[in-house]
Parts: sequence; C-alpha cells; structure tokens
Amino acid sequence: MTSDSQQIEALIRGFANRAENKSFLLSNVTDHFLAVRPSGNPITAEGLVGMYNNADLIVELSELIKIHRLEANLDWGFAAFTLKEEFSYKGEKNSDLSSYSMIFKKIDEIWMIFWMQRSSGTTDLSTWNQV
Amino acid sequence: MTSDSQQIEALIRGFANRAENKSFLLSNVTDHFLAVRPSGNPITAEGLVGMYNNADLIVELSELIKIHRLEANLDWGFAAFTLKEEFSYKGEKNSDLSSYSMIFKKIDEIWMIFWMQRSSGTTDLSTWNQV
Repeated sequence: MTSDSQQIEALIRGFANRAENKSFLLSNVTDHFLAVRPSGNPITAEGLVGMYNNADLIVELSELIKIHRLEANLDWGFAAFTLKEEFSYKGEKNSDLSSYSMIFKKIDEIWMIFWMQRSSGTTDLSTWNQV
Repeated sequence: MTSDSQQIEALIRGFANRAENKSFLLSNVTDHFLAVRPSGNPITAEGLVGMYNNADLIVELSELIKIHRLEANLDWGFAAFTLKEEFSYKGEKNSDLSSYSMIFKKIDEIWMIFWMQRSSGTTDLSTWNQV
C-alpha cells in the first residue's frame, strides 16, 4: 500500500520518463485534461503524445531534476517540479530546464493527472533555492 | 453568503485588477505562496508586488479576458484564465495575452491564492476554443 504522495510522485516520474514511454500520459490523465504550453496555448494529452511521435522531434533525455513541492488533500494533489529535457527538432538541438505545475485528482482510488502548465526551458535552478 | 466558486472568481478578479490595487496579492495569498514565472523561475508575492511598484514598470491595463476553468472541492480550488496585460517597462510597450493556472486553498473559511504559474504573453485565444 503506497501513500498518496508516493502515488503522485510515481505519476511525475512516469511523465518525466516519456523519452522511453511516450504514451504514459494517455492512460494517466483524467477526462478533460489539458496542458498549458509556454506560449499560453493549451494542448490535449493526445496532442502532446502526438508531438513526441512526430519524426521531426527526437527526445534524447527527459529527466526529473527536482520536485519543489508535493502535497495532497483528500482527493486533490499538487506538485511543482523541474525537468531537464534534451531534444532535437528538425535537427536543431535544445537543452531545456523547464518548470511545471501539475494538479492531480484521485478518482475511484486512483490518482490521475488533471492539469499541468509548463514554463519555457530557461529555468535557473538556483532561483528555486532562494524562495 | 457567496459560493466557493464566487469567492474564487473574486480572487481572480482582484488579482487581475492589479493596475489599480497593486498590493492585492499580499493580503490574499497563503503562507509559502509562490508564482512560477514564464522563465520557470519562482517569485514570491512580495517580489511580484515589488515589480509593480518599480518605477520602470508602468501597468497600463490588466484585464481578465476569459476564465477557461474554475472548480473547487472541499478546501482546494483551481482555475485557468487569460489576462490582457498592457505595460511599459523602461519606456518599452508590451501588450500581452498571458495564461495562468492558479490554485486556491480554503483556510479558516477564507479562500486564498496558494500557487500560480504564468505563461509568456503570446496566448492565441482561439486555441482555447479548439480543445
């Protein structure tokens, strides 16, 4: 029996591991899930997974660097974390440190990802130690 | 007696109205509140309010354009919305459409802002109608 926090952390790690498991999101989000992109535009789980399956995008690394916050009440959870994401898009290399806010809901005893927002890839990790 | 949703909407409107009430955040956030900036770096409520009080930054307009989602359970709430923000920084004009995810907690019967993340100012509102 794992705790709520452990189940939420497993979701974060599953999401972060998308270089290896591209379709993780599809089976771990609630109905009506959306992600807010750095631009401010939303995208569905299907849309995100479609990006990873685009031959122009090669994800070389997606690694969980730090969980800044993680908490849960009865059936809602929240986490903030930073990923290191290295990828090539049409041959152009990117190396991002992006910060996410993620919200979770427990539905029929199973924690699911309900919402997330991703920053641009310019996180300065030291700033998280100063607040 | 206003409903949870009405109280949460009032917080969003109070935050959006910062051109007129710059210090609204200070009295309406929980302890340990943070905002994630478009860069991925966090900032405290005091830091945000300090920005608005910086003589180099002149906020000309901060207007709530659309609430995309708003819901609450017993003592946690969540909203996603887009603001129109027009401001000058060191004389350079900006006109932003920025999208926010915001999380709320009800503490001693009062709803407070607990967390938020802001996108860059490039939101294309039509994309929110397509998801």
